[in-house]
Amino acid sequence: MATTGREFFTVKAVSEALAEFRAAHRTPAETVPLAQAGGRVLTAPIAAPEALPGFDRSSVDGYAVRARDTFGASEGIPAYLRVTGAVRMGTSAQDEVVAQTAVAIPTGGMLPAGADAVVMIEHTQESMPGTVEVVRPVAPGENVVRRDEDAAPGAPLVSPGRPLRAQDVAMLAAAGVTAIAVHAAPRVTILATGDEVVTPDTKALAPGQVRDALSTSIGVLVREAGGVAAPAAIIPDDREALQTALIEAIATSDCVVICAGSSVGGRDETAAAVAALPDSEIWCHGLAIKPGKPTLLARSGDIPIIGLPGNPRSALVIFRTIGMPLLRRVGGWTVEPRPGSIRARLSRDLPSAAGRLDIVQVRLRNDEAEPIFGPSALLSVLTAADGYVIVPEDANGLSAGDGVDVVPYG
Amino acid sequence: MATTGREFFTVKAVSEALAEFRAAHRTPAETVPLAQAGGRVLTAPIAAPEALPGFDRSSVDGYAVRARDTFGASEGIPAYLRVTGAVRMGTSAQDEVVAQTAVAIPTGGMLPAGADAVVMIEHTQESMPGTVEVVRPVAPGENVVRRDEDAAPGAPLVSPGRPLRAQDVAMLAAAGVTAIAVHAAPRVTILATGDEVVTPDTKALAPGQVRDALSTSIGVLVREAGGVAAPAAIIPDDREALQTALIEAIATSDCVVICAGSSVGGRDETAAAVAALPDSEIWCHGLAIKPGKPTLLARSGDIPIIGLPGNPRSALVIFRTIGMPLLRRVGGWTVEPRPGSIRARLSRDLPSAAGRLDIVQVRLRNDEAEPIFGPSALLSVLTAADGYVIVPEDANGLSAGDGVDVVPYG
Repeated sequence: MATTGREFFTVKAVSEALAEFRAAHRTPAETVPLAQAGGRVLTAPIAAPEALPGFDRSSVDGYAVRARDTFGASEGIPAYLRVTGAVRMGTSAQDEVVAQTAVAIPTGGMLPAGADAVVMIEHTQESMPGTVEVVRPVAPGENVVRRDEDAAPGAPLVSPGRPLRAQDVAMLAAAGVTAIAVHAAPRVTILATGDEVVTPDTKALAPGQVRDALSTSIGVLVREAGGVAAPAAIIPDDREALQTALIEAIATSDCVVICAGSSVGGRDETAAAVAALPDSEIWCHGLAIKPGKPTLLARSGDIPIIGLPGNPRSALVIFRTIGMPLLRRVGGWTVEPRPGSIRARLSRDLPSAAGRLDIVQVRLRNDEAEPIFGPSALLSVLTAADGYVIVPEDANGLSAGDGVDVVPYG
Repeated sequence: MATTGREFFTVKAVSEALAEFRAAHRTPAETVPLAQAGGRVLTAPIAAPEALPGFDRSSVDGYAVRARDTFGASEGIPAYLRVTGAVRMGTSAQDEVVAQTAVAIPTGGMLPAGADAVVMIEHTQESMPGTVEVVRPVAPGENVVRRDEDAAPGAPLVSPGRPLRAQDVAMLAAAGVTAIAVHAAPRVTILATGDEVVTPDTKALAPGQVRDALSTSIGVLVREAGGVAAPAAIIPDDREALQTALIEAIATSDCVVICAGSSVGGRDETAAAVAALPDSEIWCHGLAIKPGKPTLLARSGDIPIIGLPGNPRSALVIFRTIGMPLLRRVGGWTVEPRPGSIRARLSRDLPSAAGRLDIVQVRLRNDEAEPIFGPSALLSVLTAADGYVIVPEDANGLSAGDGVDVVPYG
């Protein structure tokens, strides 16, 4: 039982990693036009520069009135009001509403002076030209959106620390905020290591060679987490070459990802190269997760470094579980995303060791989640999956028929 | 009770709209490099051009052996094998494994000729130089990933009709497929209509004016659904101007969105302008949904046209519910996305009319979903929401304490 335990000198739980391996580094602010603000993260809250919508508006098609003129109105005894004009969209109302008068108003129209409510057109009849019969009373304020009902001047419009959604962008547009300060997208350098690794556009492989499957696909997840990936670099199994590449990556990136060799030797080389970086700390070398145990989490200065396992499937699982939340924090997120999940029943037992997080790929068939197994070297397990189930650290596995939450892919 | 029913001449259920209002139009194919393929939709399946991983690989660090040489091995009676060499990554194995010999091999290394299994290093001891003691037997094929285990030549690698995920991109990279044919991103023209509407960068509003909150925010949802939005255009309440803009939009877009006026007049103008387009059909003018009833679904030729309600909140809800699925189909999706949801308990009763779909914005507090109400003119209801609950068409509302699925925002 020779070398077991040698390579994993500081194994941590995934929950510890998520709570404690938090880079201090944040990307700086940059200003973007509102049209490019979707998904970006504000660096500071934005307050309403003025009241919104800015004027009292009708929320229905109807007649602007003084509410008291409609009190007691009914189908049997309507209130008769003289129509003195009509509100035109996009202009201030010309006609003041005085006692026993009404002004026609479209949805969104500006309430005329003197009016304090709007009667829906459905509750009126126009029996005589120039006069409207109101058959139901309205209360003051009824069918009116107050001038500051969406936001009072100075009220917070949108919050920092989470990506702007369509509705946040709508609110900023309504308020006339068209240039906004957001965190710059984290720049991520992905280093693929290994003498066997060649670029994906290599036509004919020599025996023993494999194409770099990770740089491009980790790049997809980097973009999903709001980052930008530098062009891929393949580094041979040579400590000095890795060291040189790492120093350059640290200087130009907000986060560095190493797709490490999957052999013990490759992992050792990676750890040694990281340990030799200036002001470096290896936070853990080994995570209690399956797949993905041989994960390295480290930093140089305040730039986080993630050493992914060599197996493509493990690497993708780890980057999704550990890398994406980390990258989001570097990019200014202060809240954890709450990914939605799909409720399903497990089609078979899932054994698991307590103390270890298991991430199990599943196919969804109606409401049944069918685990897909296979060596973690296989990508086909992931391409066949519709999502994954997390078996928690404190669970001793799950049983067939158990309800599970499937986190869907894309 | 004058005009009720006038404007909603063909009200349809949301389920009908999703099932039947399906544009025939699909965007054409374009070729993109693999690095830009994440989220794109293939136009045709891609088959493996060669076996993957391409050679028999070890899945562990250990010794390549003939399995039969280990049969019966145990801690008490180990099998002694002569070590004749070591496999180097990225090259073919130099040494053939013959009877009673072993070759050291790292994870991912190419299995040498003659070997049919790998013994994990943990199940060996190197007691004498040049000899390894195997203390557990291996079966043929054990700890070996077969040359075609990820994909046999000609096997389907990734499917069309759904967006490529990170793992799909990894599989294509591994297979050396670096230029792929995908559906072009649907081009969407968004027309904001209304005399009161001005561009978001308007500093000081005249009385009765509002800034265009929808073009930019619908653009965010367009991108989320894989499309690209043309620069926003604001059209005055003038049928001819709308007609001209529509004709140009139809000619240059894969989908046209009209942010219609919210008044009856504005809606009528929109419907009339759409009806006058060449080869046009108004599929419905009114949806059984709250908010968002005054929705227009139409086509001109095979280009779908969505007339959104004038209230920003209703418009965003409708575009998410109807527009995004439609746009995905135009962009080549053949599967419906299954959005994940968060299970929560409703904090209060939600009345609803059967036959109508209700979309209710909610705030999440731990596992409680708290509905947020307010006029559908208010954007602040949406910006305060963490997600929404769908009250199905066949439900008569929900009760406090009921379990609900919250679809989270971003």
